[in-house]
Amino acid sequence: MKFATFRHGGREQVGLVDSEAERVYPVDVADMVELIARYDEIAPKIRMNGNAVELSQVELLAPIPYPRRNIFCVGKNYRDHAREFASSGYEAGAVKGAEIDDYPAVFTKPATCVVGPGATVDTHPKVTSAVDYEVELTIVIGKGGRDIAREHALEHIFGYTIINDVTARDRQKNHRQWFLGKALDTFCPMGPWITTADEVDAANLQVRTWVNGELRQDANTRDLIFDIPGLIETISAGTTLEPGDLIATGTPAGVGLGFSPPKFLKAGDNVTMSITGLGTLSNPFA
Amino acid sequence: MKFATFRHGGREQVGLVDSEAERVYPVDVADMVELIARYDEIAPKIRMNGNAVELSQVELLAPIPYPRRNIFCVGKNYRDHAREFASSGYEAGAVKGAEIDDYPAVFTKPATCVVGPGATVDTHPKVTSAVDYEVELTIVIGKGGRDIAREHALEHIFGYTIINDVTARDRQKNHRQWFLGKALDTFCPMGPWITTADEVDAANLQVRTWVNGELRQDANTRDLIFDIPGLIETISAGTTLEPGDLIATGTPAGVGLGFSPPKFLKAGDNVTMSITGLGTLSNPFA
Repeated sequence: MKFATFRHGGREQVGLVDSEAERVYPVDVADMVELIARYDEIAPKIRMNGNAVELSQVELLAPIPYPRRNIFCVGKNYRDHAREFASSGYEAGAVKGAEIDDYPAVFTKPATCVVGPGATVDTHPKVTSAVDYEVELTIVIGKGGRDIAREHALEHIFGYTIINDVTARDRQKNHRQWFLGKALDTFCPMGPWITTADEVDAANLQVRTWVNGELRQDANTRDLIFDIPGLIETISAGTTLEPGDLIATGTPAGVGLGFSPPKFLKAGDNVTMSITGLGTLSNPFA
Repeated sequence: MKFATFRHGGREQVGLVDSEAERVYPVDVADMVELIARYDEIAPKIRMNGNAVELSQVELLAPIPYPRRNIFCVGKNYRDHAREFASSGYEAGAVKGAEIDDYPAVFTKPATCVVGPGATVDTHPKVTSAVDYEVELTIVIGKGGRDIAREHALEHIFGYTIINDVTARDRQKNHRQWFLGKALDTFCPMGPWITTADEVDAANLQVRTWVNGELRQDANTRDLIFDIPGLIETISAGTTLEPGDLIATGTPAGVGLGFSPPKFLKAGDNVTMSITGLGTLSNPFA
């Protein structure tokens, strides 16, 4: 199933999406995090009843517009991207021959920089001149837990969505720790909805980005260096995961810094991302 | 003034602390973030009235027990600590002669690892064998804002508190990005209360840590590399700060990794921290 958060008639609601019929059926919950936390109880009552709204008539918001804490993000998790990053000059402390890390790099993006499909992303020209895109398969945690072994990790996943981990490369480099380069307001487009885990094989999804219609990123999640069960095992070691937590799993090669000269984003650009089975996320930059 | 969050008679409340008389006067607000966000309106009504409770009769909690997003943390912000960190072998990518960064390193700790004064900190022996302490003067944001110039930064500060930025050095090193080493459950003791900004000169406070009664850290905030107005200017560039946001400003020399061999924490240890005018924060480790 696919669940979206949307605004219709001035009200924010959660709904079940019928993406083929292009309709959404409202679900009676306060928000997406409540749906996820109480899913076992709510799921049997969810049906495609008569109250459908045409998708074209609603404003899709980020599926989790107000995450309860920062978004967990993984860096350098595809080999080709780890190499393009290290050789770009934008990785602080890059070491030739050691582009692939032994342990995943994990940082966060503030919950407050999330925006929805179609929302305008600010290029912050006073703060950065190196805005870049990163398409990322993003895990939505269902059942919380700590010290989750990799063989039980999939039981904790509610579903998946797309995040554009927009990055100010100059700030990412200068401050060495990546957080400030990832934290600018509007730098976390998310959506278009959450697809439940049963609908996709997360280890075999095609991940793509187009900038102004030009294909820039085109990879498959089978090439993740640290796979999804391993990421959940690592991040949950000593740190309790909670329903609605988001883990962005890293981006493949083809980001703007990988070109020579770099192809950074500017006002007027449009970035569209798609992942097999998860839909399309498109945002204008201004 | 000093404001605490405390539990008394099974109820969590915010109160005005009279630290000399060792009493706390309940304030009629939902929580500390509400007090901060509505302070201009609430402050005139706050007084030391007849409903005082003895401090000895209450359980002090972290002044902000449930921050609305992760805590902003600054690394390597005292020269002597930057040098001890670089030479300890625990700093990934350390470069000799370049111990002092040109830009502050900023990372986060999850909101969910906050605990209060006296609460037990878990040493997580299955996850780490290198648990370390870091006393940090912590800014509590009052008035929110973005792109705050350093000359206006102090207007955005509600007050200050103490955070122990407990760190798993092995995870901090292995994962290169510091987040995972900082994010373990209970790794953010905070308190004992918030002292409003008018009561202290934050640029001249003595910052100390004792482990089992032995003085380990003893420095002054005048030695911060990146000062408080500069940190607010840098962090708020493009990123909106909100009332109740917390910025831990970094730790001075004397942490466990600075000793040879390192003096990491073990179950049974007690860590006590004090900062001039802000009180004392003491936590057992188990």
